[in-house]
Amino acid sequence: MNRYYAGVKMLSFPEYDDGGAVVVEGLKDIPFEIKRVFYIFGKGNVGTVRGKHSNRKSEFVLFNVKGKSKVKTIDEDKNEVIYELNEPNQGVYLPKMVWKEMYDFTEDSVLMVLTNEYYDSSEYIRDFDDFVVEMKRIIAAESVQNQ
Amino acid sequence: MNRYYAGVKMLSFPEYDDGGAVVVEGLKDIPFEIKRVFYIFGKGNVGTVRGKHSNRKSEFVLFNVKGKSKVKTIDEDKNEVIYELNEPNQGVYLPKMVWKEMYDFTEDSVLMVLTNEYYDSSEYIRDFDDFVVEMKRIIAAESVQNQ
Repeated sequence: MNRYYAGVKMLSFPEYDDGGAVVVEGLKDIPFEIKRVFYIFGKGNVGTVRGKHSNRKSEFVLFNVKGKSKVKTIDEDKNEVIYELNEPNQGVYLPKMVWKEMYDFTEDSVLMVLTNEYYDSSEYIRDFDDFVVEMKRIIAAESVQNQ
Repeated sequence: MNRYYAGVKMLSFPEYDDGGAVVVEGLKDIPFEIKRVFYIFGKGNVGTVRGKHSNRKSEFVLFNVKGKSKVKTIDEDKNEVIYELNEPNQGVYLPKMVWKEMYDFTEDSVLMVLTNEYYDSSEYIRDFDDFVVEMKRIIAAESVQNQ
């Protein structure tokens, strides 16, 4: 497992008022400052797969505030890991370069995504084969540096 | 109307994918950097009033990603304004010092709140009479400065 994928982890956020509210503070509950928030609705996305890209700069935290969805990561050797998002105070942290797919949205799903970067289309790798080439190049370069 | 309350306004966030997703970027779609995100559920809050405080430092953007709620602002002269939150891409911006109450949560309500500050209990004014005194003191001081 390369170091980017080794950094993927589930996070738990503080709840208060008997679970009536949840708080997420940048650099405290998650590993980055929050530049951008976006949210994806289950309505219109049931049966679809979102994401399907890797990011050269952006890190993400994903959590479902309502309903359920799943996040699948796929590495350069096609190893897959699936994270189920079904608790409003539990999210998954994805470092940069991780290939991600979001799917199995329930009709009532609201998937919140926090990121450390503004939107910049040039940092998105949208073709899986391109991602594999770029990831293997990075791993090879880091391997040389570490020798 | 004092200058804090004059700054309250409804904001509209960019939608994409036929309304299937909404994006909010700090300092772009809202007037501040996002330090903290919290979310309040309708479940357990139907019939309750949340908020009931003013903040010396924190600014807020509130929006319902699911269901409905209302935000009422009350100024030092007890003038009230009510904002209905029922569109996932429309939020209300509240500058610092604005007294706010959130209520009329539907059972399925998920009220998202973005703020420019980490939680700090010392910046909360939780008594309305204290708020009136402090606001009138600020207005008087600014009035002197502007003479």
